[in-house]
Amino acid sequence: MMLGTINHIAIVVPDIALAAQEWGARTGAPVSEPQTLPEHGVTVVFVDVPGNRIELLEAYGEGSPIAKFLERNPDGGMHHICFDVEDLEAMRDKMIAEGARVLGDGTPKIGAHGKPVLFFHPKDFSGTLIELEQI
Amino acid sequence: MMLGTINHIAIVVPDIALAAQEWGARTGAPVSEPQTLPEHGVTVVFVDVPGNRIELLEAYGEGSPIAKFLERNPDGGMHHICFDVEDLEAMRDKMIAEGARVLGDGTPKIGAHGKPVLFFHPKDFSGTLIELEQI
Repeated sequence: MMLGTINHIAIVVPDIALAAQEWGARTGAPVSEPQTLPEHGVTVVFVDVPGNRIELLEAYGEGSPIAKFLERNPDGGMHHICFDVEDLEAMRDKMIAEGARVLGDGTPKIGAHGKPVLFFHPKDFSGTLIELEQI
Repeated sequence: MMLGTINHIAIVVPDIALAAQEWGARTGAPVSEPQTLPEHGVTVVFVDVPGNRIELLEAYGEGSPIAKFLERNPDGGMHHICFDVEDLEAMRDKMIAEGARVLGDGTPKIGAHGKPVLFFHPKDFSGTLIELEQI
């Protein structure tokens, strides 16, 4: 059993309108319209680089899950890598069996794209927050 | 003109043997043998996730270019994203024209994979270090 393809690489940004303009102009890649997801505390823009998506994330509202990251990284920065998986619970169990810690209670939650997701502890992936998304 | 596909996502790790073992076991993806590149100050391992490569980087020798990053991030962390480009100098000029700052003197150097590369300032990509590699 293995991870699927990278669904997106998430980058937290302090100003999503500016980031979308800069990434679009500098990479030449198509950039989506901003979409605010109040229940997830973020506004997202996708940069469609060939073969992958970069997800720009701006904090939205009180208690945004990325607010602390932005405090520590005021210029923004790479936040997580999200992989598609065919069987989220089976992949979770394999990762746990191999010593990785799932965040929260281990029950998949509906993520920002409407699919079940789980996050794994950065310390168990060389300082990199890993998201798994059910395809 | 636009960037090509992601060549690799680089993650700095404190212990590459441990990181290779953990990433391999937890993701199920094939992991390469470690390769030390003394002239680049790193030992690299590739994790072949479907459609992309994750490049694990351990510091090697005195003055490794990733030594400071590791001091600030002792658990490791995401370091840069490398994109393939068809015409490195033309893409460099486009990015500079759109306000991005190239690192060094702007002359392509031979990178860790034997191809000409350039790096762009993280502040100009939302805190994300960007590498361009001539395909």
